[in-house]
Amino acid sequence: MALILYELGGRNDARYSLFSWRTRLALAHKGLRADLKPVRVSDKAAIGFSGQGKVPILVDGERVVVDSWAIAEHLEDHHGGPSLFGGAVGRALARFLNAWVDRQIVAAAAPLIAPEVVEIVDEADAAHIRAGMEKGFRTTLVAMREARAAHLAEFQRRLDPARRTLGAQPFLSGDAPAYADAILFSVFQWARIAAITPLLDPADAPTVAWHARMLEAYDGAARRAPARAA
Amino acid sequence: MALILYELGGRNDARYSLFSWRTRLALAHKGLRADLKPVRVSDKAAIGFSGQGKVPILVDGERVVVDSWAIAEHLEDHHGGPSLFGGAVGRALARFLNAWVDRQIVAAAAPLIAPEVVEIVDEADAAHIRAGMEKGFRTTLVAMREARAAHLAEFQRRLDPARRTLGAQPFLSGDAPAYADAILFSVFQWARIAAITPLLDPADAPTVAWHARMLEAYDGAARRAPARAA
Repeated sequence: MALILYELGGRNDARYSLFSWRTRLALAHKGLRADLKPVRVSDKAAIGFSGQGKVPILVDGERVVVDSWAIAEHLEDHHGGPSLFGGAVGRALARFLNAWVDRQIVAAAAPLIAPEVVEIVDEADAAHIRAGMEKGFRTTLVAMREARAAHLAEFQRRLDPARRTLGAQPFLSGDAPAYADAILFSVFQWARIAAITPLLDPADAPTVAWHARMLEAYDGAARRAPARAA
Repeated sequence: MALILYELGGRNDARYSLFSWRTRLALAHKGLRADLKPVRVSDKAAIGFSGQGKVPILVDGERVVVDSWAIAEHLEDHHGGPSLFGGAVGRALARFLNAWVDRQIVAAAAPLIAPEVVEIVDEADAAHIRAGMEKGFRTTLVAMREARAAHLAEFQRRLDPARRTLGAQPFLSGDAPAYADAILFSVFQWARIAAITPLLDPADAPTVAWHARMLEAYDGAARRAPARAA
């Protein structure tokens, strides 16, 4: 049965959704292919069939699965291929890491990325993203951009536990990448595709080396998506 | 071969070292017993045999293992009983959680606990702890106590990813506790033994329920250590 993944699409076919990148890498990890369907963020009608308004959405035969975490569990439980979690404890701790990335890391990255994401989507999507971000963060995209140095310092500070871990082992999941790596890497892939200014600190050797490994993993699945041109 | 665990001891035989509690719960998880040897924090001579100045120290026959993470790996690799990590990915992600707890959670809890720890140890240890904390945090224990409300709010904020996870599953490690749970719980056990004022927010239902489960786990291994009397 063919898999279909609905994900955000911008101008020049940029596929910039960080949560969809978690799913893309989960599919690559398991050796699965999906038809990738771009959706504009302001076009709720296109995904009305899912009964909600967010991507990624995985359609697997008659099953419609929403939310990147739920999609990862669905792939693990209903498809073969290498494990995304390495067992029950690995799955439980990946859920913790998912919460840590979403609540601490994405929250710190959003003020850095949002002012640039609006430049790579069409006008209706830009207005939609601008309104959502300015409401959520109670400030303007212009103010976010002006406070970039402070936001970047906070992002780097919050990344500290991952940096420490990657100084001791090549991947968050150990000797090889697994879903936990896809979760954190999705934030950097978001930045790579949607922003010109980088999130990576060149002096942060453990994270830089891991980032390079993740770009090459799964036959370069992440690297093949073009970085935004400077 | 008998196991010996060196750990901090205070007045009234209080065993208040959070890192030693990680090892105690790891031993309980594996069904192992160790002779527990209290050491005063200012008495470096008592643990000079280990070639360094910190507890916990596990002596396992001719092996001397220092650092709670290294001890957990040693127990997993050289002793039987239930797995502490649930496999290679679980071990790798537990290392991440260890870094997160040490760098984010312990760092936020220390200004809350340190002003009370000094009340349960002898005078030489109190002076030692006071000097170390006041140097590390560049402020006084009195100032820490006065800023308690702000420190507690920051601690609760940083705990958010664990709270989210425990809202979805009974333990950080899934359906049953494993070493990752011991890592985070050690901070609360530290507070329970060394402090009168609590770290737990009674309104934080997921963490409160998990804390109660952890007190009962392993035949009440953590609960049997008396809480500091109010």
